[in-house]
Amino acid sequence: MSVAERVYQQVSQQRLKDDITTNAAFGEIPTKQGRGRTVLTGTEANRKAREFLVDRMEAAGLDVRVDAVGNIAGRWVPESADPTLPPVACGSHIDSVPEGGIFDGVLGVYSALEAVRALQAVDADIERPIEVVCFTEEEGARFSNGVLGSSVASGQRTIADALALEDDDGVTLEAALSDIGFRGSGRLHANEWDSWLELHVEQGERLQDANAAVGLVSAITGTIRCEIEIEGEADHSGSTSMAERTDALAAASELVLEVESATQDAVAENGEAVVGTVGKLDVSPNAINVVPGRAELGVDVRDIRYGPMERIVGRVRDCLETLEAERGVDTAFERPYDIAPSQMSERCTAALRDAAATIDATTLDLHSGAGHDTMHIASVTDTGLLFAPSHGGFSHSPREWTDWESCATATRVLTAGVANLASR
Amino acid sequence: MSVAERVYQQVSQQRLKDDITTNAAFGEIPTKQGRGRTVLTGTEANRKAREFLVDRMEAAGLDVRVDAVGNIAGRWVPESADPTLPPVACGSHIDSVPEGGIFDGVLGVYSALEAVRALQAVDADIERPIEVVCFTEEEGARFSNGVLGSSVASGQRTIADALALEDDDGVTLEAALSDIGFRGSGRLHANEWDSWLELHVEQGERLQDANAAVGLVSAITGTIRCEIEIEGEADHSGSTSMAERTDALAAASELVLEVESATQDAVAENGEAVVGTVGKLDVSPNAINVVPGRAELGVDVRDIRYGPMERIVGRVRDCLETLEAERGVDTAFERPYDIAPSQMSERCTAALRDAAATIDATTLDLHSGAGHDTMHIASVTDTGLLFAPSHGGFSHSPREWTDWESCATATRVLTAGVANLASR
Repeated sequence: MSVAERVYQQVSQQRLKDDITTNAAFGEIPTKQGRGRTVLTGTEANRKAREFLVDRMEAAGLDVRVDAVGNIAGRWVPESADPTLPPVACGSHIDSVPEGGIFDGVLGVYSALEAVRALQAVDADIERPIEVVCFTEEEGARFSNGVLGSSVASGQRTIADALALEDDDGVTLEAALSDIGFRGSGRLHANEWDSWLELHVEQGERLQDANAAVGLVSAITGTIRCEIEIEGEADHSGSTSMAERTDALAAASELVLEVESATQDAVAENGEAVVGTVGKLDVSPNAINVVPGRAELGVDVRDIRYGPMERIVGRVRDCLETLEAERGVDTAFERPYDIAPSQMSERCTAALRDAAATIDATTLDLHSGAGHDTMHIASVTDTGLLFAPSHGGFSHSPREWTDWESCATATRVLTAGVANLASR
Repeated sequence: MSVAERVYQQVSQQRLKDDITTNAAFGEIPTKQGRGRTVLTGTEANRKAREFLVDRMEAAGLDVRVDAVGNIAGRWVPESADPTLPPVACGSHIDSVPEGGIFDGVLGVYSALEAVRALQAVDADIERPIEVVCFTEEEGARFSNGVLGSSVASGQRTIADALALEDDDGVTLEAALSDIGFRGSGRLHANEWDSWLELHVEQGERLQDANAAVGLVSAITGTIRCEIEIEGEADHSGSTSMAERTDALAAASELVLEVESATQDAVAENGEAVVGTVGKLDVSPNAINVVPGRAELGVDVRDIRYGPMERIVGRVRDCLETLEAERGVDTAFERPYDIAPSQMSERCTAALRDAAATIDATTLDLHSGAGHDTMHIASVTDTGLLFAPSHGGFSHSPREWTDWESCATATRVLTAGVANLASR
């Protein structure tokens, strides 16, 4: 029997459920449906969740350290391993969006810990150390746009820049982490990891629709976000003739439809991973009897390749030029957020695919339209991303739900995948 | 010399300026530019403004009464007049929008009082009594959608319905009027007036552009307001493919452009008085990374004829049907506000035109795209509406401004117009 075959049987659904359920009590919110929590970085709920995680890591014999930006890593060096070899790292995050669900991120962290416990229970010939990792503020609900801890661990943001980030009240990340006792030192070096695996709930319905046990992610889409301002002229809706108007909302409406149309063209050429959304539109003065003087739009464009994203953004800019020329509006365009698509490595995906075959778990190959810490880690080492099925695809909501059996199955695949990577 | 020729020379610019300037102190607000005030119905500022008006009316020998909804009327019966004849009435309002200007409404009330004072100063052969009228809450900034007092005076709303109106804090109009001592009894019967004249600042730039001293209004546009809800499905902007979306904002954008296009078609057929505006659009959840689940729109359609307005609203409804069929959204449509266009009477406009000719004041024939108390009064008696030029067309703003000389010229035209109507 291979290591993978022996180890997955040691995964305990009950132990995993107990951990996730205990964690769910931190920052728990009253809900009508489902189970919800609000765990923002540096809050009391976050402190409790972090302390519980450290306790559970230490109970499993892991050597725990906290870096300067609050990333937590627990290291296990099997007796059979060479401690000088680059480790296999595995994990996710435990912060949440406001009023989020109990699985997002948490499943990834506790499944990684469960994988170590399962590996410990068998006499496996593991060559590499294992790191269980919990990144700070994946959701970006307090200090950042998200994937904060992994941006530091992958060297894309300095510790100093991260610690200086402020929340809406001017509190710095450094102060908030110090308050809860999780402002450690140094930083994780993800580029020194042999490989990285993350298990996450899907945030969509493709696995449910395909009746697949796990999703093998080939790529995470990149994201370009544009912030656009359209300035017209606010006027009395009754006494300003149609010819005299410079209506910012009419101009904005053309832009919304151009984003949709450009994206549909890109889908026809490049496949359905391409998405383009105007999710945010603020009109002012926003009164029924005033011609809109100003509109602010937020555009979000994603794909697994950069070219189609760039072409959509190009059409947005062309549209703004046309609006200036034809409608007389002034426009401003910014592109404050630009993350390239990330490809998962063949090696990691093969390790997960072999693991699923070992366990006889059905798989679906798919891409992730949502961002994850794995995006950053993929820029410095080999990565694999595994999805567990979500009921109805609800995400960032107390209605988010993954059956415990599905959690356990995905954890078995993850565990066997870690074993495959660590023992080769 | 005709009465008109003699009387207009008695109009005192200084007296008019003193009244408007004194009134401007009630509810005065600090401003960077211009001069502003906030005078909402039933407030302390409103009480002071009303008391000052009553004082000035009584000082001019008018017989003042206050009706159940706070409308104020001051009656003057010239010695030469038959007190049993229907009076010529004249006035406007003294409430303001929040942070409004000092002329809107106020010029109409104090110019009417100045007209009486001028008529008193000459030995004029006036046949009819004159009523100087100040209507309650034309602006609709606290209890109503506007033109409140005139809706009761014209019999379109009962006293009981009006008194039961509540502000955002649940205070009734009745309580607020009682508090300031202006909950009188009975109601004004505008249908018993021989005619009605109102002088108002233009709220646009047509007079300024044409370099005309006064505007003779032929009609006030009607207004139809529609409240529309478009329900789609809120989804993750990254993990929901274009084909799976029901985007409420994309649907709303089509509607915005259809309102514009339907109105432009109506302008081509019916002339530039037709206007259609989507002034209000609220998107939810309104986050850059969420496909919009819901959009609420406010549409405002106006014209001097009802047919074109109805055809635009028909196209709005057709568009909603198409959006339901083609985009799968649910829609809801309400039409909470519907005021028919009002035509000014030939007789009153001729009286004002003759008056302007007497004074040698240049005139411009125009329509009013903004609503006025005169809309309601036009449904029960002959009416005329006169505009004084506004600098830059600023309205509902401390930047609203009409030169004192322009105020006096328009008041001279009004005075001669009243004389023309009252002495025939």
